Amino acid sequence: MVLTDPHAAGARSLEEVVEEILAAGATAIQLRDKEAGSGELLPLARRLRDLCHARGALFLVNDRLDLALACGADGVHVGQDDLPAAGVRAVTPPGFVIGVSAETPELARKAQAEGADYVGCGPVWPTDSKADAGGAIGVRGLAAVVRAVRIPVVAIGGITPERVPELLAEGAAGVAVIRAVLAAPDPSAAVRALLRAGF
Amino acid sequence: MVLTDPHAAGARSLEEVVEEILAAGATAIQLRDKEAGSGELLPLARRLRDLCHARGALFLVNDRLDLALACGADGVHVGQDDLPAAGVRAVTPPGFVIGVSAETPELARKAQAEGADYVGCGPVWPTDSKADAGGAIGVRGLAAVVRAVRIPVVAIGGITPERVPELLAEGAAGVAVIRAVLAAPDPSAAVRALLRAGF
Repeated sequence: MVLTDPHAAGARSLEEVVEEILAAGATAIQLRDKEAGSGELLPLARRLRDLCHARGALFLVNDRLDLALACGADGVHVGQDDLPAAGVRAVTPPGFVIGVSAETPELARKAQAEGADYVGCGPVWPTDSKADAGGAIGVRGLAAVVRAVRIPVVAIGGITPERVPELLAEGAAGVAVIRAVLAAPDPSAAVRALLRAGF
Repeated sequence: MVLTDPHAAGARSLEEVVEEILAAGATAIQLRDKEAGSGELLPLARRLRDLCHARGALFLVNDRLDLALACGADGVHVGQDDLPAAGVRAVTPPGFVIGVSAETPELARKAQAEGADYVGCGPVWPTDSKADAGGAIGVRGLAAVVRAVRIPVVAIGGITPERVPELLAEGAAGVAVIRAVLAAPDPSAAVRALLRAGF
């Protein structure tokens, strides 16, 4: 899963980079922009949705349920400050994918009980990408979350191809990255390297 | 319509003040908090919804459609940076009230064409309550918006009881206030003074 960042793609357009990394095999894109308004983001969200669906990839929107519903995204990813999964589930159509950020077994179990489809867990390692992320939980912290729930756990934070095997060994279902792909000199090569590392 | 502000009620609880102003005759409450997360606001939103519905008043949520849907609000009020009215209309149930901030005739006509139920128009006079509000449009600016649309226009920005008659004379359907009520020494008396001024 590649999370978008309004600045990480540098001078290139986000859509161009997303199209490229989908071709390289990325299986999910999450539109993440804490700054722009939902109205401003709607055209971009619709284009990213089309790019994802043309490649059979999942398209999610971070936090903004209004935008996720309006652009026809497959789902939404919410943090602990956002609406809880149960609240999202109550107002969204059947099959709508709900991801929840949960860094502890307790939070992950709560998300699962409320109907979350997957848990995003991290940061496993320290990272500069998310200014609001807490302290790193380590591979041990990730493993505790994996053991706590039945739903898939996606590892995030400081992910590199070298680190993928130990994450999968601990039971992670996938990995989420931001700058490791978007800010790479060759985003497609970065995606392929991650995929080769274990998927 | 009284817009809430997380700080305007001072040391008193927002719910206590809202209960009081509903008893005094306020006909609509709009929960407005740009800072807290939707998850954090959900319990408060549900309690305000109950207080409003017990008094037959309308309960709206500013901006956050996720919260509006999850708490069972009557509708949402969106700004020009938020999802446009058409986007909100497409993903909300029949009868869901949609208000749109529009300070010009063009924006008001667009909101009406997209299915908005009312337009919030201002700031008519300069105000300290909304740091993100633009320059004052004056009574003349309000009148131009009123003439441009068939849907009700709610005036906002620097509203006082003394100014209500000229707003109604120009065709405003109602007024929206924040600090004029919430930060008043006696919020109930402030509501009654506004109502006596023309409603």
